[in-house]
Amino acid sequence: MKTLSLAQHRKTARKFSHDPISIDDILHCIEVAREAPSGMNAQPWRFLLITDAHQKKTLRMLCEEGERELHQKVKGALAEWLQKKGISWEKPFLEDAPALILVFSSLHAPYRIQSTWLAIGYLLLALEERGISTVTYTPPHPETLRTHLEVPDEFKLEVILPLGHSVDEKRKEVRKPLKELIHVGRWGNHL
Amino acid sequence: MKTLSLAQHRKTARKFSHDPISIDDILHCIEVAREAPSGMNAQPWRFLLITDAHQKKTLRMLCEEGERELHQKVKGALAEWLQKKGISWEKPFLEDAPALILVFSSLHAPYRIQSTWLAIGYLLLALEERGISTVTYTPPHPETLRTHLEVPDEFKLEVILPLGHSVDEKRKEVRKPLKELIHVGRWGNHL
Repeated sequence: MKTLSLAQHRKTARKFSHDPISIDDILHCIEVAREAPSGMNAQPWRFLLITDAHQKKTLRMLCEEGERELHQKVKGALAEWLQKKGISWEKPFLEDAPALILVFSSLHAPYRIQSTWLAIGYLLLALEERGISTVTYTPPHPETLRTHLEVPDEFKLEVILPLGHSVDEKRKEVRKPLKELIHVGRWGNHL
Repeated sequence: MKTLSLAQHRKTARKFSHDPISIDDILHCIEVAREAPSGMNAQPWRFLLITDAHQKKTLRMLCEEGERELHQKVKGALAEWLQKKGISWEKPFLEDAPALILVFSSLHAPYRIQSTWLAIGYLLLALEERGISTVTYTPPHPETLRTHLEVPDEFKLEVILPLGHSVDEKRKEVRKPLKELIHVGRWGNHL
C-alpha cells in the first residue's frame, strides 16, 4: 500500500481486543524504524517490548497514579479536549493491548527527541501496514516508569505504544485543509 | 513499495542536481505528513515551500553565517564526526536543490516537537516513494531565518528539507544491530 493510503487509513486506537499479535510483525516494524536518519547518526532510540500480563498491569497502575493527579489539575483547552474525547485518567489499553513498546531516547545524542520521534513516524506507518493499531501515549511521569523498569538514567522514556487490534469505534480526527498548512514563497501566500 | 524497502533505500543526500522536481509530488508528500497524529490533534506543523533562486541564495547565506560561527566553536565528538563526514560550514544544497520545504511548529501546541518530527518521518518516506531525496538540515539560528521570512513568532523553524535528485555518492550510514536496540521484557534482555 502507498504511504498516503497507510497514513490516511491509520487512526489512533485507545481500545484493543485481547487477540494476540505476532511478535515477528512487531520486530519487523522496529526494523523499519531503525532505518530512520538521526542527528550525527547517533540512533538514539531503544525499544523495550513488554507482553507479560503482570508487567502490563503494574505499568498501568503506575501511569494511572500520575494520570489521576494530572486530571485533577488540568484546566482550560486541555480539560475541554479530554472531556470531548472521553479521555479519563483510566488507561485500560495498557493492560488490554497484547503488547507494549516503550520507546526511549539517549540523553547523550544530539537532537534526540527529534530523531526518536521521526523514527516513531516510520514505526506507525509500518504498524499500519501490518494491521496493528496503536496510540502514542505519553505518560505523565516517565521518570517513575524508567526507574521502576530499572532502565539506565542515560535513557528517557518518550512514549508507550500499546499494540493490538483496535476495537475503538471512534472516527479518525479531521485534518486541517492543505491550503491552511502550506505557504508558498512567503508566509501567508496560500495555494 | 513496502515501508521497509522505502526506509532501507532512503539515504540522506547533501548534493543535488539542478533537475527540477514536480510541485505536485511535493504537495502529495505534505498530504501524507498531514495525516500524522498529533498531541490534542493540534496539527502544529506548517510548511513553507521555497523554489525561487534568489530566496534560496539568501537563506543559504543566512545559514552559512551561523554555520561559520558554529564550526569555529565546535569540539569533541561533533567536530570529529563533521570532519569524518566532510561536513563544513558551507551549505550549497540550500541553493542547488530545486526546492526547499521549511517545516515550522506552533508554540501553542502540546508536544509540538514530538508531533512535528513524527510528521517529518511520514514526509521522508513519502518523498522516497516519489524518488525525491533530502537531508533533515537544522540551521544553527532558526530564529534569524524566521524573522527574515516574516513568519509569526507563534511558529518555530524545526528543519529545512532541501528537495531534489541526489548526486551524493556517499553510502547510507550503518545501523546498529536490532538486538542492540531491542530489549525484551526487561532492560538488558536482548533477542
